[in-house]
Amino acid sequence: MSEAASKRVTMRRGTNRAEYDPATMREVLDAGMVAHVGVATDDGPIVLPMAYGRTDNTLFLHGAVANAMLRAGTDVDVCVTVTLVDGLVIARTPFHNSMNYRSVVVRGTATRIDDPDAKIAALKIINDHVVEIWDTARPPSESDLKKTLVLEVPLDEMSAKIRAGDPVDEDQDLDGPHWAGVLPLTRSWGDIVPAADLVDGVDTPVNVAGLAGQRRT
Amino acid sequence: MSEAASKRVTMRRGTNRAEYDPATMREVLDAGMVAHVGVATDDGPIVLPMAYGRTDNTLFLHGAVANAMLRAGTDVDVCVTVTLVDGLVIARTPFHNSMNYRSVVVRGTATRIDDPDAKIAALKIINDHVVEIWDTARPPSESDLKKTLVLEVPLDEMSAKIRAGDPVDEDQDLDGPHWAGVLPLTRSWGDIVPAADLVDGVDTPVNVAGLAGQRRT
Repeated sequence: MSEAASKRVTMRRGTNRAEYDPATMREVLDAGMVAHVGVATDDGPIVLPMAYGRTDNTLFLHGAVANAMLRAGTDVDVCVTVTLVDGLVIARTPFHNSMNYRSVVVRGTATRIDDPDAKIAALKIINDHVVEIWDTARPPSESDLKKTLVLEVPLDEMSAKIRAGDPVDEDQDLDGPHWAGVLPLTRSWGDIVPAADLVDGVDTPVNVAGLAGQRRT
Repeated sequence: MSEAASKRVTMRRGTNRAEYDPATMREVLDAGMVAHVGVATDDGPIVLPMAYGRTDNTLFLHGAVANAMLRAGTDVDVCVTVTLVDGLVIARTPFHNSMNYRSVVVRGTATRIDDPDAKIAALKIINDHVVEIWDTARPPSESDLKKTLVLEVPLDEMSAKIRAGDPVDEDQDLDGPHWAGVLPLTRSWGDIVPAADLVDGVDTPVNVAGLAGQRRT
């Protein structure tokens, strides 16, 4: 079993659900769509949803909101959390009610990417994180790039927590009159909605068209 | 149009998507299932997913993880963020790619609830937040209650951000060869999975049974 990279990403509670295996942690990151990014500011902590992408060693964050996080300089201590809820776990007693979920917590320093080539590479990774849409779009202009803020966070310190399966009730409740089970929650892509201002004759990219109606894990 | 309750929950970016109407903010809180709760700690910010519920004026948080947040005392400055992703917004150029989403950010002080009656009332609200399952379960024991940590956060300082609809591209890209549109993402309840250790003759509660296969907004 893999070990945690540092004390501050070592699970203290629910240690039976801790996962430090890099492949497992990456799978959760790949399944998520937004990260909740936390920073400490002078007037308290702030947590904002941001789009992201990853390589094996680096997480990239994107969003105008990053500006607020970087007001103090070019890098900032962050916690990046990605959570997928997979179902409601309904126990015989509320004390054991829970959710099935997959969650990854990354801690580290977010640094602004200034080099234009590195920025383009990171933006491609972020844009292609959910579905590959970079190559079928008009490439970003120099002005687009200048207006875009991209941060990188090393994937050195992270942990995952995964809960799956049945509720776990007290022995003495098992033959009681109360129900227990799981109500699974799934995510699916709906029907594609072409933009109202789309001109005639522009086909939906194959990568996008193929997702309509598909389940997202 | 409603105004923000304080400067620190006044949107600086994307102000056209800011919502300070209490009913709108509550609707987003009601649609979410987990909150991402951020606190500042001595070794950096931390963001953890937690179950929650609300009344009109108060947000309640629950989770063993709250322990870590309260190590320093009985209350702590938090940021509680709830986000629902409603779709991928695919523009003609990556610079305008986005997501459709609903998000609420609550800032304030989380305080531990110690009074047993207040704690039970808060736990019922948290447990019934997604589906009403409190009344059909075995009530919590005194020992359950003692082991459970519940926090309350006043819903005084909050803001919502909602994006919906088409991508917004540059005028000069509108008649180009690149596609634009939205790929909606939906959430649905799956088929109910009774616990493997459920005894014969215990019916699925009506509130739970009625959700199987239903869309969750």
